Amino acid sequence: MRSVFWDYGQNLLNLIDQRQLPGNLALLECRTVEEVVNAIQSMAVRGAPAIGVTAAFGLALAARNSKGSQISEILQDLETASQLIRSSRPTAINLAWGVAQVMDAARNFQGSINELKNAILQKAQAMADQDVETNQRIASHGAALIQDGDTIVHHCNTGSLATVDWGTALGVIRSAHDQGKRVHVLVDETRPLMQGARLTAWELAQYQIPYEIITDSMAGYFLMSGKVNLVLFGADRVAANGDVVNKIGTYMLALAAHANAVPVYSVFPTSTIDLALANGMQVPIEERGQEEVLDVSLHGVKVTPINAKARNPAFDVTPHTLLTGMVTERGIITPPFEPKLIELLK
Amino acid sequence: MRSVFWDYGQNLLNLIDQRQLPGNLALLECRTVEEVVNAIQSMAVRGAPAIGVTAAFGLALAARNSKGSQISEILQDLETASQLIRSSRPTAINLAWGVAQVMDAARNFQGSINELKNAILQKAQAMADQDVETNQRIASHGAALIQDGDTIVHHCNTGSLATVDWGTALGVIRSAHDQGKRVHVLVDETRPLMQGARLTAWELAQYQIPYEIITDSMAGYFLMSGKVNLVLFGADRVAANGDVVNKIGTYMLALAAHANAVPVYSVFPTSTIDLALANGMQVPIEERGQEEVLDVSLHGVKVTPINAKARNPAFDVTPHTLLTGMVTERGIITPPFEPKLIELLK
Repeated sequence: MRSVFWDYGQNLLNLIDQRQLPGNLALLECRTVEEVVNAIQSMAVRGAPAIGVTAAFGLALAARNSKGSQISEILQDLETASQLIRSSRPTAINLAWGVAQVMDAARNFQGSINELKNAILQKAQAMADQDVETNQRIASHGAALIQDGDTIVHHCNTGSLATVDWGTALGVIRSAHDQGKRVHVLVDETRPLMQGARLTAWELAQYQIPYEIITDSMAGYFLMSGKVNLVLFGADRVAANGDVVNKIGTYMLALAAHANAVPVYSVFPTSTIDLALANGMQVPIEERGQEEVLDVSLHGVKVTPINAKARNPAFDVTPHTLLTGMVTERGIITPPFEPKLIELLK
Repeated sequence: MRSVFWDYGQNLLNLIDQRQLPGNLALLECRTVEEVVNAIQSMAVRGAPAIGVTAAFGLALAARNSKGSQISEILQDLETASQLIRSSRPTAINLAWGVAQVMDAARNFQGSINELKNAILQKAQAMADQDVETNQRIASHGAALIQDGDTIVHHCNTGSLATVDWGTALGVIRSAHDQGKRVHVLVDETRPLMQGARLTAWELAQYQIPYEIITDSMAGYFLMSGKVNLVLFGADRVAANGDVVNKIGTYMLALAAHANAVPVYSVFPTSTIDLALANGMQVPIEERGQEEVLDVSLHGVKVTPINAKARNPAFDVTPHTLLTGMVTERGIITPPFEPKLIELLK
């Protein structure tokens, strides 16, 4: 099952509701742009590639729901929906990318209203199919980095759930496993929302890949021990100079890998590259609600004092100087990143 | 109220039960060595200085409960109790230090059995009183590092709860606050057992010092932002070369501070120094039960999949090369640490 897919019988968008995992594998049905925006903001769907495709399907819903009787009126409704979707989360470039792909197709469309509505859905479907193919290419390139017997530290969730299917960094691990290489994954739990402990652990169990959950703060200990061979994570936006904006905690993990000379790769589709940004410090970092940090319990007992306050930046910037390389569907690149990123997008 | 204190009416040891904070401020009564060992292992009492003094009072209980009719029999019971206490947790040096202080006094004692039992209790009481005085000296030296308006990242809990009273790194912050300096503390939550979010946040609220809780993985983001002036943490054992063994996550925090040229100090009493260890890599690192990592809930819902596995090293090693300095009751030292640590203990 894909994490994002269109139901052609009911004409609606289905999302695996990631908030309910690992306890329940449930679908969230979206019939309107507002429902899609809410799903993205509440992180029912998350992961840069997955929300890019969700954005595209969101525009298909907007077109389908438009009451416009002229193409121009439908395009106007699509522009309004685009604005809503693009602003639902600020950091990952994939929302803007997904919207742009669909809007380019819509603006250049010639035909009837119904043909336009179908063309937009077909475009979103093609992007979903393309995402799976892209991930399998990424995984095929990246699997070469993994040797039989390797121990890998992985941050956040970059698997099937973070994409339409297969995954980026976790897809690399999955492909190596499918090639018969024995791998062991140390899963960063990824506070505050625990995408590692909740989602990556659940996926690895499905794939029967051995893993152990660690707190984010433990990665340094294991990296220093000499028993880790590779560090992998995804990306939410990659700047022109190679700085990687990714889930909070990626920077400290990359620092620890670099300090211990353990190879560290960011794994992403080329749609994540944003050459318009000179470096990672220019990317807007989303700060989410305090309750995601505060409403946590140990052994069933709430941890934080009443009236406690918290900060909650959702992403950080990993300077390109800490990275060994990057894995994309067009191959692996190593420093200097800037000219190679430009070359990749040609 | 002290976190560790003798009840002279009931002749027993009282500990603030830190497992129940911040929800309940409750005392745990210990009447036997076994109860003391259980309190240390279950982390009802924790913090290197606090468990050092608890160890001493534990021997006072052992002496009091001894059925020996000869001094030699009581000393034998004390040796047995010492072994139990020393092995209750392996990493902090303070347990061994607390036991050694009392046993030296006991072995050299001349007098009756009752006088010996009283002398041991007096020795433990003197160590408790000394701990408070030591912490206030540490804080007085350390407060000079803090400027009005500073933002400080703090790891784990090093306050009154981690000591008999006042604290080490948190004592430094408290003294600066008492001097009228405005400080803001970013409190590392300190997974897995959340000593920051549970205990440090609770203490700071008592002292009316402004704070915000962050996940351990967020410290790098704030350090990179240029808005943090100082990083402070304690120590569980300091090796001869200055490597600091401390709560898991300290290493990654120190790496991020060092990478961003933010001053980073370890704060501890000289009883934490272990010159017998050449470097931090030789210290035994306690690995605790998996459930401390796995049994965590977000918004009331358990995070990890059924049958998930985890690792749980409780400490890590921060290489001395990452540290700006160390604060002790005998003053602040800066690199090179090794000759200065030797000098401090003379």
